[in-house]
Amino acid sequence: MNIVALAGGVGGAKLADGLARLNPPPALTVIVNTGDDFNLFGLHISPDLDTVCYNLAGMEQRNTGWGRADEGWDVYQEIQKLGGPDWFRLGDKDLATHLERTRRLGSGEPLSKITADFCRVWEIDPAVLPMSDDPVPTIVLTDQGELAFQDYFVKLSCEPAVTGFRFQGVENSQPTPGILQAIQEADLIVICPSNPWVSIEPILAVPGIRSALEEKLVLAISPIIAGEAVKGPAAKMYLEMGIIPSATAVAKHYGNLLDGFIIDKQDEGLMKVIINRETHPLKVFCADTWMKTREDRVRLAGEVLDFGQQIIEEV
Amino acid sequence: MNIVALAGGVGGAKLADGLARLNPPPALTVIVNTGDDFNLFGLHISPDLDTVCYNLAGMEQRNTGWGRADEGWDVYQEIQKLGGPDWFRLGDKDLATHLERTRRLGSGEPLSKITADFCRVWEIDPAVLPMSDDPVPTIVLTDQGELAFQDYFVKLSCEPAVTGFRFQGVENSQPTPGILQAIQEADLIVICPSNPWVSIEPILAVPGIRSALEEKLVLAISPIIAGEAVKGPAAKMYLEMGIIPSATAVAKHYGNLLDGFIIDKQDEGLMKVIINRETHPLKVFCADTWMKTREDRVRLAGEVLDFGQQIIEEV
Repeated sequence: MNIVALAGGVGGAKLADGLARLNPPPALTVIVNTGDDFNLFGLHISPDLDTVCYNLAGMEQRNTGWGRADEGWDVYQEIQKLGGPDWFRLGDKDLATHLERTRRLGSGEPLSKITADFCRVWEIDPAVLPMSDDPVPTIVLTDQGELAFQDYFVKLSCEPAVTGFRFQGVENSQPTPGILQAIQEADLIVICPSNPWVSIEPILAVPGIRSALEEKLVLAISPIIAGEAVKGPAAKMYLEMGIIPSATAVAKHYGNLLDGFIIDKQDEGLMKVIINRETHPLKVFCADTWMKTREDRVRLAGEVLDFGQQIIEEV
Repeated sequence: MNIVALAGGVGGAKLADGLARLNPPPALTVIVNTGDDFNLFGLHISPDLDTVCYNLAGMEQRNTGWGRADEGWDVYQEIQKLGGPDWFRLGDKDLATHLERTRRLGSGEPLSKITADFCRVWEIDPAVLPMSDDPVPTIVLTDQGELAFQDYFVKLSCEPAVTGFRFQGVENSQPTPGILQAIQEADLIVICPSNPWVSIEPILAVPGIRSALEEKLVLAISPIIAGEAVKGPAAKMYLEMGIIPSATAVAKHYGNLLDGFIIDKQDEGLMKVIINRETHPLKVFCADTWMKTREDRVRLAGEVLDFGQQIIEEV
C-alpha cells in the first residue's frame, strides 16, 4: 500500500515509525510540520523534522521521544557557564544536525534536499518531506500577545492562554517538491496523532496540500484520549479556543477531510456520537492508541492500515 | 607598569599569558587580531581571540596551544557522519564559545562587549580587546587567487604561494572602544611574537592604531628564530614575498615603529647587523624566546619587561 502520513512531533513520529516497521512495510512518505522551526544561536532548528527522523532511525531518546539517545550535554553546560540561554536544551549529537543543516541552508540548498541526505545517512527508508522549503513560522496568538512558537511552547511552557494561530507567510509558500505527487499516488492518507492546531494545521495551510488531500481517502488518529492530550498542549488549546477537548472535537476539527477516524478504546462511548454528528459518511474505529513501547507503535500502525484497507474496499 | 600587547595566535597568546602571570602582574591590555575571524556553520568564529583567551584562562590545549584542554569531539564526529566539512576541527567546549558569541552578535551586541563578558566568566584579569568591532577579514592574495584567510591557513594548509594581503573594509573600520586610550596610557607597547603579515599588520591597519603607537615606546619579539617561524607560515610568507626570512626581516618589517627588538639567542650574530641596518636608534636584546613551557612564558615576559624598563629609563 502507498501511504502518505502527516506528522508533527512525538505522537506523529511514533506512528510514522510504527508504519515504517510493519512487515512488509508500506511505501511511506511522511510530510512533516516545519511551522515550529526557529533560529537559536544562529542555527536553523527543525524540532518536528528531527523528532520524526530520530524516531524513524530508532535513535530517539526513549524516555522523552525527542532528541537523541545516548546524548551528551557538554556544549549546553559550557553555554550555561557563559550565561547563555537555558530554555532550549541542545544535546551534543543533536547540535551536529542543526550545524550541518544551517551550513547547507546557508549555501543555498533547500531543506528538503538536506533532509533527504540526512535520512540516507541515518538509513531511513520512508521519504521524509518537510511541508515546505519556504519558512512558515507558526505564531501563537495569546493573552500575552503574539508569540513565536518555541517561545510559547518551550520558553513559556505553553502557559499563555491561546486565542488563535497564524502561519506567517504561508500564503506565499509552496509544498516541497514531491509532496503533491506523493499525495496523488497514495492509496491512503494518515493524519498522525499530532496536535491538530500547531502540527497538522500548518501542513494543511500550505497552498495546494489540503485540496490534494480532499481527493483522497483520509484517516486520522485522535491525539486526544479521554479529554486529554497524550503529550503537549492540544487539550489546553481546545479549551482556550472555547471547545471541549475530546476525540469528537478532533473529528470536527478535520471535518469533511476525514473518511475514517481512529479513537482510543477509552473513548469507545463517543463512537456513535461522532458518527451521528458528522454530516458526511465517517467510519470510526477504536484502538489502543497510546504508544508506550516500540511494539505499541507497530501494532497501532497495523490496525491503522487494516482499517484503511477496509475503507478502501468499501468505497 | 602599564602594558599594551598586540597579539595574534599561539605565540602571541603565550607571551600575553606570561605577562599576565608575572608577580606582580603589570596592568595589561591585549589587543587581538580579528582578521582571521570567519563564519562556519553560521557561527562567528574568532580563532585568535579564543586562543588568547583560552591561554590567559589557562584552559588551552597544551600540546597545540589552541583550542580547549580536556576537549570532546562528539559534535565534530557527528557532523562527519552527516558528510559535513572536516577541515576545521571544532571541539565541543570550544563550540559553546562560538554559539553564544554568535547569538549575542546576532542580537546586536559588539564583539568587544561579548569578549569582556566571556573574560569575566573565565576569570581573565587583563583587558582583552578585539582590534575592531567591525569585520575586517584578511584576504590572502596567492598564486591560486584571492583566498579567505582560513581557507588559505587551514583548508589549504598554507600551501598556495603568497603574493600579498588585503584587509577587507579596514579603511572604514574603527578601533574597539578603549584601544586608543589604553595605548595613550601605556608605558610600553609589546608586539608579541606573532606573524607580522597576518597577525600584527591587520591590527596596525585599523585607522588610528598605528599613529597612536608611533607616539609610544614599542618593543617587538621576533617570531622568526634562525630563519624559521616557531609555528605557522611567517617564514614561508617572507620567502614568497621575496624577503629572506630572519629576525632582521622582522625588524625591518616594523621599521620606525620599534624602539626595542628582542631576538632569540640563536640569532645573536644578527644583533649588530640589525642595529647597524636601521636608520633610527634601535635597542636589541637577546633572549631564549622559544616558549615551550608555562615557565618559559613567564621568564620571557619578565625579560621583556626588564628590557622595556631599561629603554624607558634611557629615553
